[in-house]
Amino acid sequence: MPFASLAPTSPSRRLPGSTEEMIQTSKKLLNTVAGCADDALAGLVACNPSLQLLQGHRVALRSDLDSLKGRVALLSGGGSGHEPAHAGFIGKGMLTGVIAGAVFTSPAVGSILAAIRAVAQAGTVGTLLIVKNYTGDRLNFGLAREQARAEGIPVEMVVIGDDSAFTVLKKAGRRGLCGTVLIHKVAGALAEAGVGLEEITDRVSAVAKAMGTLGVSLSSCSVPGSKPTFELSPDEVELGLGIHGEAGVRRIKMASADEIVTLMLDHMTASSNVSRVPVQSGSSVVLMVNNLGGLSFLELGTVADAAVRALEGRGVKITRALVGTFMSALEMPGISLTLLLVDEPLLKLIDAETTASAWPNMAKVSVTGRKRSRPAPAEPLEAPDSTTAGGLTSKQVALVLERVCATLLGLEEHLNALDRAAGDGDCGTTHSRAARAIQGWLKEGPPPASPAQLLSKLSLLLLEKMGGSSGALYGLFLTAAAQPLKDKTDLPAWSAAMDAGLEAMQKYGKATPGDRTMLDSLWAARQVLQAWKSPGANLFQVLTKAVQSAEAAAEATKNMEAGAGRASYISSARLDQPDPGAVAAAAVLRAILEALQSPAV
Amino acid sequence: MPFASLAPTSPSRRLPGSTEEMIQTSKKLLNTVAGCADDALAGLVACNPSLQLLQGHRVALRSDLDSLKGRVALLSGGGSGHEPAHAGFIGKGMLTGVIAGAVFTSPAVGSILAAIRAVAQAGTVGTLLIVKNYTGDRLNFGLAREQARAEGIPVEMVVIGDDSAFTVLKKAGRRGLCGTVLIHKVAGALAEAGVGLEEITDRVSAVAKAMGTLGVSLSSCSVPGSKPTFELSPDEVELGLGIHGEAGVRRIKMASADEIVTLMLDHMTASSNVSRVPVQSGSSVVLMVNNLGGLSFLELGTVADAAVRALEGRGVKITRALVGTFMSALEMPGISLTLLLVDEPLLKLIDAETTASAWPNMAKVSVTGRKRSRPAPAEPLEAPDSTTAGGLTSKQVALVLERVCATLLGLEEHLNALDRAAGDGDCGTTHSRAARAIQGWLKEGPPPASPAQLLSKLSLLLLEKMGGSSGALYGLFLTAAAQPLKDKTDLPAWSAAMDAGLEAMQKYGKATPGDRTMLDSLWAARQVLQAWKSPGANLFQVLTKAVQSAEAAAEATKNMEAGAGRASYISSARLDQPDPGAVAAAAVLRAILEALQSPAV
Repeated sequence: MPFASLAPTSPSRRLPGSTEEMIQTSKKLLNTVAGCADDALAGLVACNPSLQLLQGHRVALRSDLDSLKGRVALLSGGGSGHEPAHAGFIGKGMLTGVIAGAVFTSPAVGSILAAIRAVAQAGTVGTLLIVKNYTGDRLNFGLAREQARAEGIPVEMVVIGDDSAFTVLKKAGRRGLCGTVLIHKVAGALAEAGVGLEEITDRVSAVAKAMGTLGVSLSSCSVPGSKPTFELSPDEVELGLGIHGEAGVRRIKMASADEIVTLMLDHMTASSNVSRVPVQSGSSVVLMVNNLGGLSFLELGTVADAAVRALEGRGVKITRALVGTFMSALEMPGISLTLLLVDEPLLKLIDAETTASAWPNMAKVSVTGRKRSRPAPAEPLEAPDSTTAGGLTSKQVALVLERVCATLLGLEEHLNALDRAAGDGDCGTTHSRAARAIQGWLKEGPPPASPAQLLSKLSLLLLEKMGGSSGALYGLFLTAAAQPLKDKTDLPAWSAAMDAGLEAMQKYGKATPGDRTMLDSLWAARQVLQAWKSPGANLFQVLTKAVQSAEAAAEATKNMEAGAGRASYISSARLDQPDPGAVAAAAVLRAILEALQSPAV
Repeated sequence: MPFASLAPTSPSRRLPGSTEEMIQTSKKLLNTVAGCADDALAGLVACNPSLQLLQGHRVALRSDLDSLKGRVALLSGGGSGHEPAHAGFIGKGMLTGVIAGAVFTSPAVGSILAAIRAVAQAGTVGTLLIVKNYTGDRLNFGLAREQARAEGIPVEMVVIGDDSAFTVLKKAGRRGLCGTVLIHKVAGALAEAGVGLEEITDRVSAVAKAMGTLGVSLSSCSVPGSKPTFELSPDEVELGLGIHGEAGVRRIKMASADEIVTLMLDHMTASSNVSRVPVQSGSSVVLMVNNLGGLSFLELGTVADAAVRALEGRGVKITRALVGTFMSALEMPGISLTLLLVDEPLLKLIDAETTASAWPNMAKVSVTGRKRSRPAPAEPLEAPDSTTAGGLTSKQVALVLERVCATLLGLEEHLNALDRAAGDGDCGTTHSRAARAIQGWLKEGPPPASPAQLLSKLSLLLLEKMGGSSGALYGLFLTAAAQPLKDKTDLPAWSAAMDAGLEAMQKYGKATPGDRTMLDSLWAARQVLQAWKSPGANLFQVLTKAVQSAEAAAEATKNMEAGAGRASYISSARLDQPDPGAVAAAAVLRAILEALQSPAV
């Protein structure tokens, strides 16, 4: 990585003109390019009361430093731009503190030394520096270590290189990548348990040799104030990249998540790869699926799924799987996979408690070998039809429904035309789909004569086959309307059914009368149907009035603004056409009336 | 949100041609557009042994469902593309399960009903549906609720609308955004405590009224298989957007993080805004800084810092601050801020334990009112100069250093020219900067005659003023070399100093002899200097041979490949010029020899 800016860390915030500068390169939500590493660390510390800054330095430390007397301190760090690494991993059971450099730049030696002194002053008995293998980090942490030792402070240093990208070993060694976070965890658990400096150093050095990481990205990232660090064409993917926006080892053609994950695992474990992680059938591993920054978590989950399937397909036992953003490269839309070979004692350290904010809540159960699904409960058995029929036979019900279907099919073009003025022009199509679904269903056998069962069946049918919000609204209406008809089917029960149906539509659909929806017609009809409650009412007279009222209400929607539904978030258009949903609902009511009046019923 | 696909949730994975399709729209690391929501949920469940899928549905449930007998179950969900919401919030103390739709599409009614039946079958005493306020979600969850109630299962439903974008209230109400996650937390804590369905419903309905959320984004996101949902120019920011890629309420000019956060808080709390959160001076709040997906965590931290400063500047007490990705809109590079008014009882619920993987480890301490920094320890006092001088007076030391400086300044152009062939052409400039720094330091007073102190001082000086990897390497060499000279300054001590210096350079710089670095010259000199250990050696004879050997080694680097440093990751170039660092080191040694031989010293 780019070498350390060794200048002292003096936060020079809010330089004038910086927003301009950022717009000209890449848009970033920052105050200034120069101050962004300070701002980000300050934000993390401000929001996490377990952390504190070290004055005059870009250093974050545990707030409870003074409780660490007699323990080993763990310091890590590196350039900024890898958040939540490293400060997100400060806490009981992980790091004691971190030293951050400018973006993708090693931290200043003076700040590393100040951090070592601060933890020593708090009474810790020695410090382990956990350093990713980059020249700048090695030199600066190494120099601070030498200076601290010259002051008499015991300091050890482990250099982590977990990169499995380079199949031929480079002199500079493997780069330090996301696996470093696992080292923070292991070292933190050991330090928390009171293990000594030398033993921690030895243990983590051994663990560090048992892991490998490989990155892949769909495009680049850009350092604040700079253009993106490389370019990829739309069908290319960069493989084996680091965490500083530098290009990887090779470009491959865009492929599916499964294919890319397979390629990555092949590369990471190939016996011809000197930087391989020796994972094979029978191995137990911890898997880390790390978001390099800007990938959607939808994609991250897909990659995690692919990785679990691919590894288990190779006979690898995944003991723990960590999925999230652990070590990023700014907003790079990519991932890295890390595999760590584990045994039981190591797994205990991975499982040990920590208060570090960026370490995930993780179940302490093996991922491989457990059931990942349970059967869905069976549909409840249908209650036998104990209600009295609503006065119609099953055959008569079929005739009424056929009339409704014929009406809706005849209105298809008209409803679509009305809908084109206000919506997406498919209202007629949707209602025709419903009509054809009912026709198909009627062909399968006679419909239930029981009103409650009839409405419930129709509800499920429309929900499944009509689709869209109309299907859901009719489904809601019918489901709710069915309830009062379960025990009785007299006139007050039918009126209560209408009430229940409309209440459900209003409640979940959020429409009220006057919102230019199908509710307007049904509401008008219901007002008339209240008269059913009077025992002396003439059924056909009331129904006729109700239908007329519904039709008038549908016509009146032409003067209404759209008041509900998604379009209402955007604008409130006044239209001179009636609402097609209201027209359709009124037409359904008219069809029912006419069917009931016909000689066949 | 865009209305429910009500088709049954049958994962149709790995359709042929899908990678092509994705390349043509926007690059995504997925298997298929049609299967991505299933794959992502499967990945989350596979990696989290606390979760299980419900067979045949896009539903995730707690694995320990059967331990919830007698408790209230909490179900939430919505379209996919908001990960880690909602499945990341399943766990003890949060949700019992979630139902996921296709990307940005409400879940299927049948799956919601199946989830309700599954938790009821496990012996829970009722279910609360926590639903974000979108038409599709309201209708589908509402319909499932009505159907479940018809089956005799007690089900309540709260609809969350925390959006503070719309200053004039729309009929459809406020949209459900990231604040919903806080409702999951509060409801989860209550359910875990054994509170009943009705009371939980009432409590969370009240809490939901005390919060507000506002989003901002630097650009759009794209639904898999589709183009980005809107376009922004490089100097524009979208304010008040939702979580489905839809455009916001207005566009503002790009500004600094501080300015944008201030604007957002002004908007969210303005008394003229009917959807405001009534936060004012003296209010206690929980702050959530949510990554909408693709923003770098560096920016997220910067925004968090800006938000904390701005709120505390307004006299608001921030009790807890959550920073991370909670509810995303795919890869949208933006953030949302959520403010929830809290009192002590509510805070206890926020603080309650949970095993949900996406809920952060959070200190249960108020953010406002605690010290965020500690003073750095003072530099240790310099030990009094107790060593014997190395045989030279302070004045003689100054003469030697002046000769070295003059030599380096004379070589500036030559070294730069050599460096242009292999590096960035500034090797001479770097060494001249070092020489001028030493000259300036000599003017401030006489240098220490004690070799250990001299080398330590020079180390700090070069580290600070020379900079770059040369500064760090010289600093390392001198710091390490100073240690053996602390107690003795005889010839074996000087030889040990050379050994220690070279060991440190090798250890942290990772170069070995033959790698075409300054180490090559110094190593050659050291081989000769081993002769110092023999008591009868002639000092000047040995030194002269050492310098000649260093010069020959520097010349020999012209035949070496670059073996260390950053360039070695990329390529191994064979050059026909010597390494400028090696040439400079040899020249420094020659200058020291000549000065020691001069009459003045």
